[in-house]
Amino acid sequence: MSDSSLSRRRAIALAGVGVAGVTGAAAIGSALVKGSAGDTTPHPVEGAVAFTGEHQAGIVTPAQDRLHFVAFDVITKDRERLIGLLKDWTAAAARMTAGRDAGEIGAVGGVPEAPPDDTGEALGLPPSGLTITVGFGPTLFRDATGKDRFGLAAKRPPALDDLPHFPGDVLDDSLSGGDLCVQACANDPQVAVHAIRNLARIGMGVVSVRWSQLGFGRTSSTSTTQTTARNLFGFKDGTANLKLEETDLLREHLWVQPGDGPDWMTGGSYLVSRKIRMIVETWDRSSLAEQEMIVGRQKGTGAPLGKSGEFEEPDLEAKGADGEPLLALRSHVRLAHPTTNGGARLLRRGYNFVDGSDGLGRLDAGLFFIAFQRDPRKQFVPIQRSLSRQDEMNEYLKPVSLGLFACPPGVSGPDDFWGRALFI
Amino acid sequence: MSDSSLSRRRAIALAGVGVAGVTGAAAIGSALVKGSAGDTTPHPVEGAVAFTGEHQAGIVTPAQDRLHFVAFDVITKDRERLIGLLKDWTAAAARMTAGRDAGEIGAVGGVPEAPPDDTGEALGLPPSGLTITVGFGPTLFRDATGKDRFGLAAKRPPALDDLPHFPGDVLDDSLSGGDLCVQACANDPQVAVHAIRNLARIGMGVVSVRWSQLGFGRTSSTSTTQTTARNLFGFKDGTANLKLEETDLLREHLWVQPGDGPDWMTGGSYLVSRKIRMIVETWDRSSLAEQEMIVGRQKGTGAPLGKSGEFEEPDLEAKGADGEPLLALRSHVRLAHPTTNGGARLLRRGYNFVDGSDGLGRLDAGLFFIAFQRDPRKQFVPIQRSLSRQDEMNEYLKPVSLGLFACPPGVSGPDDFWGRALFI
Repeated sequence: MSDSSLSRRRAIALAGVGVAGVTGAAAIGSALVKGSAGDTTPHPVEGAVAFTGEHQAGIVTPAQDRLHFVAFDVITKDRERLIGLLKDWTAAAARMTAGRDAGEIGAVGGVPEAPPDDTGEALGLPPSGLTITVGFGPTLFRDATGKDRFGLAAKRPPALDDLPHFPGDVLDDSLSGGDLCVQACANDPQVAVHAIRNLARIGMGVVSVRWSQLGFGRTSSTSTTQTTARNLFGFKDGTANLKLEETDLLREHLWVQPGDGPDWMTGGSYLVSRKIRMIVETWDRSSLAEQEMIVGRQKGTGAPLGKSGEFEEPDLEAKGADGEPLLALRSHVRLAHPTTNGGARLLRRGYNFVDGSDGLGRLDAGLFFIAFQRDPRKQFVPIQRSLSRQDEMNEYLKPVSLGLFACPPGVSGPDDFWGRALFI
Repeated sequence: MSDSSLSRRRAIALAGVGVAGVTGAAAIGSALVKGSAGDTTPHPVEGAVAFTGEHQAGIVTPAQDRLHFVAFDVITKDRERLIGLLKDWTAAAARMTAGRDAGEIGAVGGVPEAPPDDTGEALGLPPSGLTITVGFGPTLFRDATGKDRFGLAAKRPPALDDLPHFPGDVLDDSLSGGDLCVQACANDPQVAVHAIRNLARIGMGVVSVRWSQLGFGRTSSTSTTQTTARNLFGFKDGTANLKLEETDLLREHLWVQPGDGPDWMTGGSYLVSRKIRMIVETWDRSSLAEQEMIVGRQKGTGAPLGKSGEFEEPDLEAKGADGEPLLALRSHVRLAHPTTNGGARLLRRGYNFVDGSDGLGRLDAGLFFIAFQRDPRKQFVPIQRSLSRQDEMNEYLKPVSLGLFACPPGVSGPDDFWGRALFI
C-alpha cells in the first residue's frame, strides 16, 4: 500500500472526531505522485499508478478490470472557464489516482455548512490502479457549422478528422461524439465511477454529461504480463494487441511523433471509441465450428486455426484438406491482420458491457471498443472499412456509438495541466 | 483453489488439442458441490460457495462485490416445460457456481457441428464466489386477470401479495415485476454475467428477459466479517443490516418458518427489489451538515449522530443543545429503525449502479435495493410506507422499479431442483 492510499483512510479516521470534523486531507501535502507514467511495470491491483509522465496513464497501463467512460459537451462559451476546468480536473485527477479525495476539503473535512468537495463513495478504498485519461473531440475545435468555438481551429490536428460512415453502423447520435472524453479505468468499479462522478461534479456549469458507459472484463491485455481476456462471444480478444513492452512498435503505431501534426499532440494518441451491441442470442445458437470459422481462432486456446498456440502467427496462406483457405477469406482474424491492412496496428483497450435488457426479451450486451493509435486515418479507418464491408462477424454485431478524441501527452508536474500546450 | 474451479481450466487445456476437441467437462464427475449453504464462514474471493443446503446461497452468503439480477417472463403455457426449465437451471447453476461450464459439452467440447452448451466468456476464470438465487413472482401463480397459469394458485403464499403503491414511486412497468427472478452475485462481474446469460440461453422459448440490472460495490454487508460499503451518497449503507452470524434474528426475520404459509416456502425467504435512481448532482450540492442530518449518521465514520462508533445504537431520544432531537424526526436512520417499525428488520443486499447517462446531462446512477425477509407484509411494506411518506432523503430519490419474489428453500442434492415442493 502506498502512502497516498493511506491518505483517504486517514481522512476517515480524522473525521471520526465528529460532525465539525477537521480539515482532513487538506494538510496531507502535494497531490501529485511523481513517477514515470510510462508504466513499464505492472501495478498491484490495489496500488496507485503514477499520474505524471511523458504520456497519459491509462493507455499502455496494464489494462485494469473495470471502465467508466464518459463524453461531455462543453456548455460554456468562455475559453477561460474551459481552461480553468482542465486545471481543476488535472488537480483532482492527480489526487484521486493517488487514492485521495477529489478536493482539499474532502468528503468529510471542511465546514459543515458547505458541500464537501468529494462525494465520498470511495472513502476507505485504495487507489485500485485508477487511471484517468482525457481526450478532445473534433467538435471542441469547431462546431457542426464550422464555427471556431474557443479559438482552437488552427490547432486542430488533421488526424482528428471526422470519421467516415461505416457500412452497418446504426449510430445513436446521443451516444456518439462529444467535445471532451474521460476514460477512468480501475480494478474496482466504485473507484472508477467515483472519479467520473467527481469530474462531472467539478465541471458543473462548464460541461454536461453527453453519454457514459460502464465496462467490465477488459477484453484486451496491454502487457505481456497479462493473460488475454474473453469477450461476450466467449473468445479471447486482443491476442495480437500492441503491448507496452513493445516500445519500438508503440513509437511507430501508438504515440504521435514530432512532425505528425501540431506540436501540442506530440506524445499523445488518438482514441476511437465504438459501442458494439453483440447479438449474443443468435451467436449462441451457431455451432462451435461456425464460431471458430468466423473468428479464425480456436475458442478454447485462442490459437489461430491450424496452429496450436494463442500467440502463433496466423498463416493466411494455409489451405485445408478441401483446398480452401484454412482461415476463411472473411474471417475476423484475416481481415483485421496487419498484413491485410498495410501494416496498421492498434492498441486496443475495450471492455465488455451489459446494459440491462433490450425490451425484446434479450440482454443488451456487447463490447465497448476503445483503440489508441498514432493516426486514425491510417489505422482505425482502413481496418474498420475492411471489417465493416466483409467481416462474417457483422451478422452478430450492431455498432451504435462512435467517438474520436485527441488525447494530449501526459502532465509533467504540479504546474502543468491537460492540454496546456493546446491553450497556451 | 477447489477441485471444481480447476475443472473450467482443465477443460481449456484439454480443448487445446484442436477444433474437434474432446468431450471435456463431461467426464469431470458430479456437478453438485456438497456442503452447507448456511455459509457460516466467509468464502475466499475466488473460491466456490456451496450450492446445496437448507437455504439458497446468495442470501446470507457474505455479500459479493458484483451483481447481475434478471427478471424473466414465462412465455410458455406448458407446466411441464416450466418444470423442465427449473430442473435444467438447477443443474446448470450447480455446475457454474462450482466454476464449471453451464453444460456437459462446455464451451469448447462436444461436436463442432453443434452449438456449445456454454457461452465461454468465463473460461479460465475461477468460481469467484458465484451464487445464483431464484425467486417466483406473484404473476407466476395467477396473471393480472386472476387466471391460474400453471395450477399453482392454491399454493400462492399470502405473503406474496402484490405490493401496494408507495408515495413518490414512479415505476416503469417494463422494469418491474416478473414471473421469475435470478440474482447472480460474484466477485467478478464477468462470472455473474456469464451465469445469467447462460440461464437465459437455456431458457430460450420458455422464458424471456423482462429486465436486467448490473450492480457493483455491495452496499450492505451480510456478515460481521465484512466492512460496511458506501452508497452513491457517499455514506456507509447497511450498518444495521441483519448478519449471517445472528442466527436467532435470521430465524425471526429472514427465513420462512413452518406454519408461516404453504410448506413449500419453509426455509425460503421473500425478496423485494427496488431500483432507486439517486439525484446525485443535487445531493452533491447540499452541505455536509445537511447530508448528515438527512441520513442521521456521520459521513466519515458512519456513526449515528451524537455517537462515535459506526455500530453504536442510535439514540432516538437524545436532544441537541437547541432542545431539538439530535436525530431529526424525518432522518433516514430514525424512520428505518426497528423501534420505529414494530421491531421489523430486513436483510439487505443492495448494489450501486450507474446505467450511463439520463439524456439531461447527468449520470443515471443510484441504488439497486434488494431485501430479504420472512414476510414483506410485516417488514418491507410498513418500513417503506414510513420512509416513502416522511424520509427527508426522498427529495434526492426516484424509485423506478419494484419487484417481489418468493425464493424457495435450498436444493438438497442432485435429485432436487428449485421449487420442487411447489410443483410436485
